[in-house]
Amino acid sequence: MSAITSALFTEVAPPHDTSGNKVTIVGVGQVGMACAFSILTQNVASEIVLVDVVADKLKGEMMDLQHGLTFMKNVRVNASTDYSVTANSRLCIVTAGARQKEGESRLALVQRNTDIFKGIIPQLVKYSPDANLLIVSNPVDILTYVAWKLSGLPHNRVIGSGTNLDSSRFRFIMSQRVKVAPNSCHGWIIGEHGDTSVPVWSGVNIAGVRLRDINPHIGTANDKENWKDVHNQVVQSAYEVIKLKGYTSWAIGLSVGTLAQAILRNGGNIHAVSTLVKGQHGIDKEVFLSLPCVLGENGVTHIVKQPLTDEEVAMLQKSAKLMDEVQSNLKM
Amino acid sequence: MSAITSALFTEVAPPHDTSGNKVTIVGVGQVGMACAFSILTQNVASEIVLVDVVADKLKGEMMDLQHGLTFMKNVRVNASTDYSVTANSRLCIVTAGARQKEGESRLALVQRNTDIFKGIIPQLVKYSPDANLLIVSNPVDILTYVAWKLSGLPHNRVIGSGTNLDSSRFRFIMSQRVKVAPNSCHGWIIGEHGDTSVPVWSGVNIAGVRLRDINPHIGTANDKENWKDVHNQVVQSAYEVIKLKGYTSWAIGLSVGTLAQAILRNGGNIHAVSTLVKGQHGIDKEVFLSLPCVLGENGVTHIVKQPLTDEEVAMLQKSAKLMDEVQSNLKM
Amino acid sequence: MSAITSALFTEVAPPHDTSGNKVTIVGVGQVGMACAFSILTQNVASEIVLVDVVADKLKGEMMDLQHGLTFMKNVRVNASTDYSVTANSRLCIVTAGARQKEGESRLALVQRNTDIFKGIIPQLVKYSPDANLLIVSNPVDILTYVAWKLSGLPHNRVIGSGTNLDSSRFRFIMSQRVKVAPNSCHGWIIGEHGDTSVPVWSGVNIAGVRLRDINPHIGTANDKENWKDVHNQVVQSAYEVIKLKGYTSWAIGLSVGTLAQAILRNGGNIHAVSTLVKGQHGIDKEVFLSLPCVLGENGVTHIVKQPLTDEEVAMLQKSAKLMDEVQSNLKM
Amino acid sequence: MSAITSALFTEVAPPHDTSGNKVTIVGVGQVGMACAFSILTQNVASEIVLVDVVADKLKGEMMDLQHGLTFMKNVRVNASTDYSVTANSRLCIVTAGARQKEGESRLALVQRNTDIFKGIIPQLVKYSPDANLLIVSNPVDILTYVAWKLSGLPHNRVIGSGTNLDSSRFRFIMSQRVKVAPNSCHGWIIGEHGDTSVPVWSGVNIAGVRLRDINPHIGTANDKENWKDVHNQVVQSAYEVIKLKGYTSWAIGLSVGTLAQAILRNGGNIHAVSTLVKGQHGIDKEVFLSLPCVLGENGVTHIVKQPLTDEEVAMLQKSAKLMDEVQSNLKM
Repeated sequence: MSAITSALFTEVAPPHDTSGNKVTIVGVGQVGMACAFSILTQNVASEIVLVDVVADKLKGEMMDLQHGLTFMKNVRVNASTDYSVTANSRLCIVTAGARQKEGESRLALVQRNTDIFKGIIPQLVKYSPDANLLIVSNPVDILTYVAWKLSGLPHNRVIGSGTNLDSSRFRFIMSQRVKVAPNSCHGWIIGEHGDTSVPVWSGVNIAGVRLRDINPHIGTANDKENWKDVHNQVVQSAYEVIKLKGYTSWAIGLSVGTLAQAILRNGGNIHAVSTLVKGQHGIDKEVFLSLPCVLGENGVTHIVKQPLTDEEVAMLQKSAKLMDEVQSNLKM
Repeated sequence: MSAITSALFTEVAPPHDTSGNKVTIVGVGQVGMACAFSILTQNVASEIVLVDVVADKLKGEMMDLQHGLTFMKNVRVNASTDYSVTANSRLCIVTAGARQKEGESRLALVQRNTDIFKGIIPQLVKYSPDANLLIVSNPVDILTYVAWKLSGLPHNRVIGSGTNLDSSRFRFIMSQRVKVAPNSCHGWIIGEHGDTSVPVWSGVNIAGVRLRDINPHIGTANDKENWKDVHNQVVQSAYEVIKLKGYTSWAIGLSVGTLAQAILRNGGNIHAVSTLVKGQHGIDKEVFLSLPCVLGENGVTHIVKQPLTDEEVAMLQKSAKLMDEVQSNLKM
Repeated sequence: MSAITSALFTEVAPPHDTSGNKVTIVGVGQVGMACAFSILTQNVASEIVLVDVVADKLKGEMMDLQHGLTFMKNVRVNASTDYSVTANSRLCIVTAGARQKEGESRLALVQRNTDIFKGIIPQLVKYSPDANLLIVSNPVDILTYVAWKLSGLPHNRVIGSGTNLDSSRFRFIMSQRVKVAPNSCHGWIIGEHGDTSVPVWSGVNIAGVRLRDINPHIGTANDKENWKDVHNQVVQSAYEVIKLKGYTSWAIGLSVGTLAQAILRNGGNIHAVSTLVKGQHGIDKEVFLSLPCVLGENGVTHIVKQPLTDEEVAMLQKSAKLMDEVQSNLKM
Repeated sequence: MSAITSALFTEVAPPHDTSGNKVTIVGVGQVGMACAFSILTQNVASEIVLVDVVADKLKGEMMDLQHGLTFMKNVRVNASTDYSVTANSRLCIVTAGARQKEGESRLALVQRNTDIFKGIIPQLVKYSPDANLLIVSNPVDILTYVAWKLSGLPHNRVIGSGTNLDSSRFRFIMSQRVKVAPNSCHGWIIGEHGDTSVPVWSGVNIAGVRLRDINPHIGTANDKENWKDVHNQVVQSAYEVIKLKGYTSWAIGLSVGTLAQAILRNGGNIHAVSTLVKGQHGIDKEVFLSLPCVLGENGVTHIVKQPLTDEEVAMLQKSAKLMDEVQSNLKM
């Protein structure tokens, strides 16, 4: 202890090393850091720990956040390449993973990321056995399954960020059509995060007024207003943003911040996240897909049973079948 | 379970009953409710439990808060006259207590409130043995001592809201003199909350510029600008507000919200709170007075050793002596 | 200027007296103060001005808020019995008004409050001709009409807090039935604020799943789950809270805080507020009732056209007729 | 208008195009986007407009923010390469600028950025003549001078982000030494942002306790605890973070968010920002350097007159002289 410290303070009792609201983020790429910044600036956690294998980049991101702590309320930021620093986290968010190489098959990519997860998931569970896992790395649905298998945790505590982001994109694009706040537009995108996601047109509403009651053909080929295009734009969104700026970060960071808040505050809020869907909508495979789920400290506590059309069910089942095939070829 | 609930949801896992950020508030008078509203609207806790002996008033306050929950983020509010509802709180705030009757001696009031505390403190400790206690009821310094004795807790975990409010009043009145934001005015009021509080003029500064370096007589009888009056206004504040509106509520609610945040988020922030001061500034009595303290999940972890003038020390010691006398006559 | 001030500062330019985010609140009773505290703690405005005829109480409330300003970010609080202090407000919230006396007819009460409004509304418009008016005093629908007439403002800029609170109560009570967050329960209460409000069962949904599709009798006498009781509880809420604690304050304060935010931030959010409904749902009277409205800096910019049942329309029309009768007997 | 929109809504009045809290950010590099995200997530403004010359990147960043708007409260995001979109902003933040090339002289860099500013500043002033300008691009002190000259605005309304960030870094590193919250550590770094900044040791304090009163040699070569190293670490911070992660972003984003809030909310808060210092501390050059300033809607309204040592004054004057030389060679 320095002379100034001993001259300044009488110690009454040792401070606790950690608070009860610790969140670990694995991977300090653009997505991981947008998650971290979103959680810090919105007061979701009082302590963030960053983990990555690239020590330099990791230290740089930690320092950059720390240098701004005086502008925030009561937050701590720490980082290490060693997972012991993550001990007693209440939530672990995984954003690490390889990107698809040109010419690489999807299975090959998933296998590479599975191998990366083998070095991450068991370490997280070792140091924080009571934490929930929130998987953000892509392809998120299969990697959430992989994380579940590697973790040994009950499936309710392994959650994929899934179509919470797709639903937000849908609501924003819808808001531009009808000129009201995105928050006042309601709609749910379910299924596989990305190209084969499923918009549930029966639930699209404003102030409880179902748009399909006004336009019975909404979302179909016969719809003169071509609302199907709203969903198409959602699917194209990620591609377009990546083409324009090189990656996506802010929206997924905000999505993860909201999910983290629902989990840490035991909110009971409903979000579309990737969860084990065996038994839902006639799916008999052990796969993860997004459905509206109730979130809290025990992870996914309930799945909302949406009444779906035959076509919507068929699309979910098709995604489930494809995933199951990929998963059956994985070396875990 | 209702038919609609079972039609709507598949249960995946039972939700947790409680979150890790639970705060109990005992006493739903104007002060207790201002504390509750301050904590709720500023996202300090994710769960609030109210306790009082007046069941009707208690239920009314609970319902009134609950009816506004849709306008807030992920908060729960519960209430009961039975302390079992407070189980596993991380912080218990006590605002309950009798007011001074006309002609009643100070000792008589303290004895009455001590008797009330006998019904509160052991119950809180029974259901939340790991919680910190934050005492707000007046006279706060003696009642924090009483709470400490009744609780059997280490003294670092029993904290009085103390002169954190007096310091805030000082900084506001100072801000009106110098025309800058209250947040950019710095000054510390220590000692006994109320009439005999002690302003530490050596610490009064703006942007690190000590006002005493500009005006060497600041705070003394020889000060032509009469800064002593700023402290006088602080002392008169509570009386004046009570005379004008009948009670004080908002400022103490905000003060307690800030202290609660420092404690729950393990912030390590420094606030003037009432703590066991034996051994500080030559005080040899087992009494509680406010000094600048470092706050976190382990309560008061450090006391800041301010260099005080002889006069300031004498005032603290006088308060300590008076309190010790009152305390020695208490039936605990 | 004091010697210390001139020693401390070089003036570069005079500060602006007021910010662009000023809100006036008329009436510092429990409702007005809950509105003020909600707006302050949630950063909705950067400047609040309180007005009331009771100078003592007014000053006490102002001081009590000011003493807590160091615990908040960049907010100013002022108060006066003279309306000149309200100049250039962007939003004026009116909570002043008399309560019903025993044996007093509704018309007599409305007349008394109309007379009170004659001393308030023209003063507000005089000093802040570009502000929106948000009326909270009861009976809110008729008094919003009165405020509109007295103000000479276009009707979109005179808004009643209406059934935004009733809708929040509905969503909370619904959340207790289905055990998910109040924010994830959706339902709209429209019409007259209070006893004769109308629940729109067709819009009640969770994650876009209409509860009437699960339970076709929901809200009717044939409903075995008796959801009608949820609305009954909403209607009884105000009475019960008043019986239990003497008045309602927190929930209406939070409701008003949310409406103020939508207006000041030009949000385009949809809330059920009291607006001129002539021409809506076959109503041919010049009366104010709550319907879902899009809110922004220009007040109510759109009304949502909900498809209503014949029974729902009849209830609205009946309320409109009764109001029109009361209004036609008012001396304005 | 689409059929659904006309079926859903009755228009009451046209919505306002813009709110009263609009902020423009020029430059969507890592710094500009960290500023934008900090302002959005902390509710500092209700409307953000991004401007850049790289249309693709600009659109990508706009879309990425928009896709997350449902997770925030009442915020709008827009972007264009055309400055007309910035009309009526209350604050314009400039982060655009070239980076130093290898072998490039400082003057050459400043000249390049001056030329870039010629395309930016007059456009901002044209569309938002009443806005404050906040310059973040480096070298910030000279570029703030350039912006002032190009803008034709009074100097109080042209502000450089300056050593607000250096002060925050100082307070964080100090907090690691003394183990209390960064917010409870106080110290001011003034002068030129970067290598030649000046720590004002007389103002370094904790709870009003001046560290120099404990350690008279603090900050000097004779200091056994080597507090000078705290300032050295501040100076090295930017270099180290850039070496580790390639650039700095989060801390400057948070610093700018805090300055924006003080300005937009007319806070009267004191921050160390770059302002015209002619006449301060014996400086006779027309240059911008950081000193503690009072900030509000009228920009810098006051400069705090800190008592400085001769050595501190000499360092400021040396910086001023160097800047003046660079400025005298600029082609404006």
